[in-house]
Amino acid sequence: MSPRKIGVTEVALRDAHQSLMATRMAMEDMVGACEDIDNAGFWSVECWGGATFDACIRFLNEDPWERLRTFRKLMPNSQLQMLLRGQNLLGYRHYEDMVVDKFVEKSKENGMDIFRVFDALNDPRNLEHAMKAVKKVNGHAQGTICYTTSPLHDVDGYIKQAGRLLDMGADSIALKDMAALLKPQPAFDIIRGIKETYGEDTQINVHAHSTTGVTMVTLQKAIEAGADVVDTAISSMSLGPGHNPTEALVEMLEGTDYDTGLDMDRLLNIRDHFKAVRPKYAEFESKTLINTNIFQSQIPGGMLSNMEGQLRAQGAEDRMEEVMLEVPLVRKDAGYPPLVTPSSQIVGTQAVFNVLMGRYKVMTAEFADLMLGYYGECIGERNPELIQIAQQQAKKEPITVRPADLLEPEWDDLRTQAEGLEGFDGSDEDVLTNALFPGVAPGFFATRHEGPKNVGKTAEQLKKEKAAAKGQANALREPITYKVTVGGRSQTVKVEPGE
Amino acid sequence: MSPRKIGVTEVALRDAHQSLMATRMAMEDMVGACEDIDNAGFWSVECWGGATFDACIRFLNEDPWERLRTFRKLMPNSQLQMLLRGQNLLGYRHYEDMVVDKFVEKSKENGMDIFRVFDALNDPRNLEHAMKAVKKVNGHAQGTICYTTSPLHDVDGYIKQAGRLLDMGADSIALKDMAALLKPQPAFDIIRGIKETYGEDTQINVHAHSTTGVTMVTLQKAIEAGADVVDTAISSMSLGPGHNPTEALVEMLEGTDYDTGLDMDRLLNIRDHFKAVRPKYAEFESKTLINTNIFQSQIPGGMLSNMEGQLRAQGAEDRMEEVMLEVPLVRKDAGYPPLVTPSSQIVGTQAVFNVLMGRYKVMTAEFADLMLGYYGECIGERNPELIQIAQQQAKKEPITVRPADLLEPEWDDLRTQAEGLEGFDGSDEDVLTNALFPGVAPGFFATRHEGPKNVGKTAEQLKKEKAAAKGQANALREPITYKVTVGGRSQTVKVEPGE
Repeated sequence: MSPRKIGVTEVALRDAHQSLMATRMAMEDMVGACEDIDNAGFWSVECWGGATFDACIRFLNEDPWERLRTFRKLMPNSQLQMLLRGQNLLGYRHYEDMVVDKFVEKSKENGMDIFRVFDALNDPRNLEHAMKAVKKVNGHAQGTICYTTSPLHDVDGYIKQAGRLLDMGADSIALKDMAALLKPQPAFDIIRGIKETYGEDTQINVHAHSTTGVTMVTLQKAIEAGADVVDTAISSMSLGPGHNPTEALVEMLEGTDYDTGLDMDRLLNIRDHFKAVRPKYAEFESKTLINTNIFQSQIPGGMLSNMEGQLRAQGAEDRMEEVMLEVPLVRKDAGYPPLVTPSSQIVGTQAVFNVLMGRYKVMTAEFADLMLGYYGECIGERNPELIQIAQQQAKKEPITVRPADLLEPEWDDLRTQAEGLEGFDGSDEDVLTNALFPGVAPGFFATRHEGPKNVGKTAEQLKKEKAAAKGQANALREPITYKVTVGGRSQTVKVEPGE
Repeated sequence: MSPRKIGVTEVALRDAHQSLMATRMAMEDMVGACEDIDNAGFWSVECWGGATFDACIRFLNEDPWERLRTFRKLMPNSQLQMLLRGQNLLGYRHYEDMVVDKFVEKSKENGMDIFRVFDALNDPRNLEHAMKAVKKVNGHAQGTICYTTSPLHDVDGYIKQAGRLLDMGADSIALKDMAALLKPQPAFDIIRGIKETYGEDTQINVHAHSTTGVTMVTLQKAIEAGADVVDTAISSMSLGPGHNPTEALVEMLEGTDYDTGLDMDRLLNIRDHFKAVRPKYAEFESKTLINTNIFQSQIPGGMLSNMEGQLRAQGAEDRMEEVMLEVPLVRKDAGYPPLVTPSSQIVGTQAVFNVLMGRYKVMTAEFADLMLGYYGECIGERNPELIQIAQQQAKKEPITVRPADLLEPEWDDLRTQAEGLEGFDGSDEDVLTNALFPGVAPGFFATRHEGPKNVGKTAEQLKKEKAAAKGQANALREPITYKVTVGGRSQTVKVEPGE
């Protein structure tokens, strides 16, 4: 019996650099790998969405729609994939349904194929309209389950959640493990459960980060349970807070009942391309290689850093342990949201406030909104006392409807807002860009004509840094001012490199 | 049914720092972790042998026997484990049988429990006497199979090899994967095969490096096949050219039929200890995080670096590809030895010579010895034409006996040699130290009284480096001489830090 084909989604062009180097990779550093990526045999190529839209206009002076069009041109054989935050699209608030329709329409037009739609709270109501929109334009709608652990989350719950997404017309289910929490046994049980309950032909994609060192085994067990596609990153852009390595996945399946069918020569080219490119972005990288803390603390690394930063700003770093003990309590009060953006920041900041000022003496506006249902529903009941406090503080009623139900049609307003802006090109794409990032888009429209900028170091800068690191005494780079005493006489002297 | 207990060998105290930081870790940086290591529940603690003996006397001015005695004192509950190079002991030539007896005796006396005995060529005759010596002093004799791949190596061959080691009285079998070549399916097949052929109670330990990113899955499959003990390194000393992380192993087995029984609180302490210590040794670390090249090239990373260095010394780096094509040919000529120390260096250097000077125009003395059987037998036939060339060049006959059979009793000579040395303390241990490293021991004996030195950076140095890296202009560390022109007048000026 021939081996079962395992599809692979390559994430080098999006989630890899988002995880490893703060989404900073410039288009010009990616285009050279596209031909090999297009011909390696991937099930899909993740290349858009997530934080890239924001990063493009905020840091890279690059039009994200142009990025998508370019990838479409360079990879004609590939299914292009994006990560979409449900009713939040790629921004930070809920959008009215027609805006969601427009965004999905334009994404499809510009070349998107596979839409991985997720909601930070796992509230299916926040996914429903986006998924309908994708089906309407004949895209592939992938309904996503954000994996997390808590006293209330269990295998059966995840199986039921998959059922709800399938009812919404999901073409496939993604099991998304941001925090590398998903262990092999639960992965096996969930996937087996979904397949046995809804049919073996239910397509399941598994996305896991590598931070905790266990998830390569998770992918193996997922595959054994019947997973159809797994996400990996080319090895030169893998591991740490990123993902498991693509070539290692290919090799680990050798001789088993599974085969990726990927072209190793192509993979090695892709690897070499990014190996050369990655050092340019070293300043954006974190040093984390492996961290299993989350299994004890339940707190993802990024969230921990944020809270540490907040404490440090108050000179209160020594209270970190208290904050770490407070987080699970706040999370419970909020009904156990998964700890991903934005719920991780919201819960984390409230935990810091609780420790510094007393429990819920001050509630952040976002936490109040979370408690009042403005982000959606969680798996657990919320603390009713806190709902009252939130109500008083925010002067808003709690809601139980889908948050977007409260939004008035806004497309015409959004168009009007964009029209006033210098550099606006009249397109629906530009209207959406401004709708998603009204604080950044105006500045971007005005500078767009200057062309994309690359925030990575140049080859020359890297060379200079290497020389400096070698401790060469004359690698003086900037002027330095010294007090110099020569023969008893002191003077202030400025010293700088000769050339 | 309760989960099957999986034993864990923690390698932080030996192979971890040997792999990650050139064996440089000082005893004083390890003792703080010993109590936690001793109480974490490990099957064994690898802490001696391999390259540590050499590194102690060559770089650290530390007596390796004292290192063992110290570990013995600090870890009274633990089975201490060492890596022993068969008839080579810890040195670079074969030793006469009585020297092997003495070494094993003294090791046991000083506290060693588990002797992992291996031979680079997998020639069981080179293991036999060492294993007998271990049994004679009631140590645990672990017969080792070095895993490699070639047209001649297959699952059945490995199963037979295990049988030969068991015939020699092995208390357990180690499957040792230096190069992270061992994929999950072959691991499963070999271990299942050994258990089914020789009995389920045959104890099998699995040691794998993590370089290729596949071996965490290999450990999972090994465990499923019945492996009894696996080697891991605490997470802060794991991955890259090192090993899979201990805590990740514990976590990945949660909810499965297997359980390590390790105490996670203890592991976290051990992790934190080494997390603080490791940055001191950063200068000795390589940057390799993951490399799957070996599956295509069959050449381990260390061997590649060596050959690159040799080519560079001849200004011939551009010929690396030819060398990489030559290596498998040389390896075939030599009968397919595993590519580990010393065979990897011997084959690699000969490949470089072949490319630079023409095939076998110049044969290294070591390669000639390899071809003539002076290292032992390989799995394949050697190229008879080359045996002739080797004979002519080395002016030695080919041999088919166990190489140590040709050695005269040498203990008395070794004692005499040691007695002449300044600082020699009269012990058999010192005689052995000098026997193993006659080029280094004399210098060490003379300076031993000065006490061990720590070649890692101090906390202060690390702080200074951090400041310098932050680009603070005034982090001038050493005096610099400039030509400075002030008001048209030039002078030579020396500038140094103020404090």
